[in-house]
Amino acid sequence: MTAPASGARLARLRDALARADLDAILISSLSNTRYLTGFSGSNALLVVTAKDALLLTDFRYQTQVGEEVAAGITVRIEASSLWTGLWATLPSLSGVERIGFESAHVLHKDFQRLLEQGKRWQWRPSVDLVELLREQKDAEEVASIRRAIAIAETALGATVPRVAPGLTETEVAGLLERELRAAGSEAYPFASIIASGPRAALPHARASNRVLAVGDLVLIDFGAVCDGYCSDITRTFVLGKASDLQREIYEIVLEANQRASGALRVGLTGMAADLVARDYIHGRGFGESFGHSLGHGIGLDVHEGPRLAKTVEAPLRCGAVVTIEPGIYRPGWGGVRIEDDVLVTEAGPQVLTSFPRDLLELI
Amino acid sequence: MTAPASGARLARLRDALARADLDAILISSLSNTRYLTGFSGSNALLVVTAKDALLLTDFRYQTQVGEEVAAGITVRIEASSLWTGLWATLPSLSGVERIGFESAHVLHKDFQRLLEQGKRWQWRPSVDLVELLREQKDAEEVASIRRAIAIAETALGATVPRVAPGLTETEVAGLLERELRAAGSEAYPFASIIASGPRAALPHARASNRVLAVGDLVLIDFGAVCDGYCSDITRTFVLGKASDLQREIYEIVLEANQRASGALRVGLTGMAADLVARDYIHGRGFGESFGHSLGHGIGLDVHEGPRLAKTVEAPLRCGAVVTIEPGIYRPGWGGVRIEDDVLVTEAGPQVLTSFPRDLLELI
Repeated sequence: MTAPASGARLARLRDALARADLDAILISSLSNTRYLTGFSGSNALLVVTAKDALLLTDFRYQTQVGEEVAAGITVRIEASSLWTGLWATLPSLSGVERIGFESAHVLHKDFQRLLEQGKRWQWRPSVDLVELLREQKDAEEVASIRRAIAIAETALGATVPRVAPGLTETEVAGLLERELRAAGSEAYPFASIIASGPRAALPHARASNRVLAVGDLVLIDFGAVCDGYCSDITRTFVLGKASDLQREIYEIVLEANQRASGALRVGLTGMAADLVARDYIHGRGFGESFGHSLGHGIGLDVHEGPRLAKTVEAPLRCGAVVTIEPGIYRPGWGGVRIEDDVLVTEAGPQVLTSFPRDLLELI
Repeated sequence: MTAPASGARLARLRDALARADLDAILISSLSNTRYLTGFSGSNALLVVTAKDALLLTDFRYQTQVGEEVAAGITVRIEASSLWTGLWATLPSLSGVERIGFESAHVLHKDFQRLLEQGKRWQWRPSVDLVELLREQKDAEEVASIRRAIAIAETALGATVPRVAPGLTETEVAGLLERELRAAGSEAYPFASIIASGPRAALPHARASNRVLAVGDLVLIDFGAVCDGYCSDITRTFVLGKASDLQREIYEIVLEANQRASGALRVGLTGMAADLVARDYIHGRGFGESFGHSLGHGIGLDVHEGPRLAKTVEAPLRCGAVVTIEPGIYRPGWGGVRIEDDVLVTEAGPQVLTSFPRDLLELI
């Protein structure tokens, strides 16, 4: 991350702190820490006040902090626990009485530390303070997501011609992930889902030793990571010639995907977006078979805000990048899901994924 | 998992509940849930009482629970939030007043739910109740870890001859992960670390676009997953002929590794195990360069109990499987780490990893 981006993000957080009447916030979410400072390590606490930003981590990251952490952020390398370091450092931050903590990230056992060892301060539970900033991607973030999408689509394009009966799902995952690495993916944002035949009815099936066979639906849901940012894409293929029912269900899911992607607007609620796809699938007679929600934000986490789901009243904000992933699943038969990544702008939705969506009959 | 294994684990948990004077425990850790029930989904709450075991999950896992969940466990598929389902179901469990909750897994925001919506029960923070059971692996678990190790070693053996100057770290990761999948790994327990040249000084470096060059130390730290169980292994290679310092440091780390592996005994404290390696490295003049702890348990999580570290007074229990991973890191120069997986038995340590540990000069 560039230092200007870090500076702008810290400035937005400080505005939010002032509005929430907080003198400081203790950040324990590693993704939130990375967003604000650039630091990508696996152990960190971050305190941000109106003037200071203090990052605590451990020995393992001594060299890495120098490479990653933006200017203007003080780093402390702790020999023992980060909490010990926190209690040693907090008193030196002036003007700090009311401190927010991340209610959705702090574990009960660490909350007890605040109550017991941090008696000197007023601890206020805070929800989504940084997450809401992260919902509005800046240009640097959108560029990273675009690169993560390009990596994923390059890899999928190189893999699809090699998917054939006789391979196991795990072997297909291996082909795909090899191509992801060859295209430059830093990691895998989640365990690749390769679900074939009846297993395609399991929306979160990962890959198994099932052998692909002619007639199977093959659902591939995976992503790439670039600069820490994730892409998330699903395509469903048929091995051989599609049956009438496979084709019918595929077309319904595709139409639901297109309608929902096209409907995204700044100000549209997550609920309303979800309903666009859900009503269409329901009207075509498969309402019971779309059991998960329409989509979720992507960014430093592969699941982040905003959610597009039945119960979400929050409106979409400019700069949100969300998945649109309707599906139809029939236990014992299989399933179809088609997932794209969409940027919400003032000018309307921009579908960032471009891998073909026509039903592909492999072999 | 087999139903008998699930039954035996639930029985051990019920003994622990009785000793802790609890009528029930609410389990929110997904790994603990998998350990007890076999369910591998990503959304679950589990309640275990003296008589009942109740698993709550959502629509996405409707088919999967049928395949995975052991007999004797009641499953509820929740249409909305698992917490709503919990409050609807808990009153039906008889004789339940004092309920433990997992202090190290429950988030502050969910703890507030217990206080606000669960007033009817007495909630008692509980630490490591299931984790302590998991420290003592049963035969089924050790067999899974052995398979995960075999997969990792097969993959490493196929990759090492192809590691060469001109490849990027990410490309090496791609080769390795392709072999992991080909050998049957279900997933990657963590982002593979391929750290070359000066980057080998970063103990948690993952893989970057750095191009491997002659003279580099190349540190490869990765694992495989089988039946949900992880392996975790590190080897460090030299590209070309090792310098005197590279060889000296390698031999020190290897000796520390061997001494620590050989010292593991039932009853040895984590601190004492750590000191075996630490004292040796210190005595050889590199005490400042081994900044992390000696090792950690592996199982359903790639980091679990017991920890082998300076501050850990708990004794090793029979059936523990731990990593032994001393290292020496010099910023700007590079680093060496050699990591094995070791089973602690009444008869002494069994080193489960068998990949050669001699310094390998590639090309």
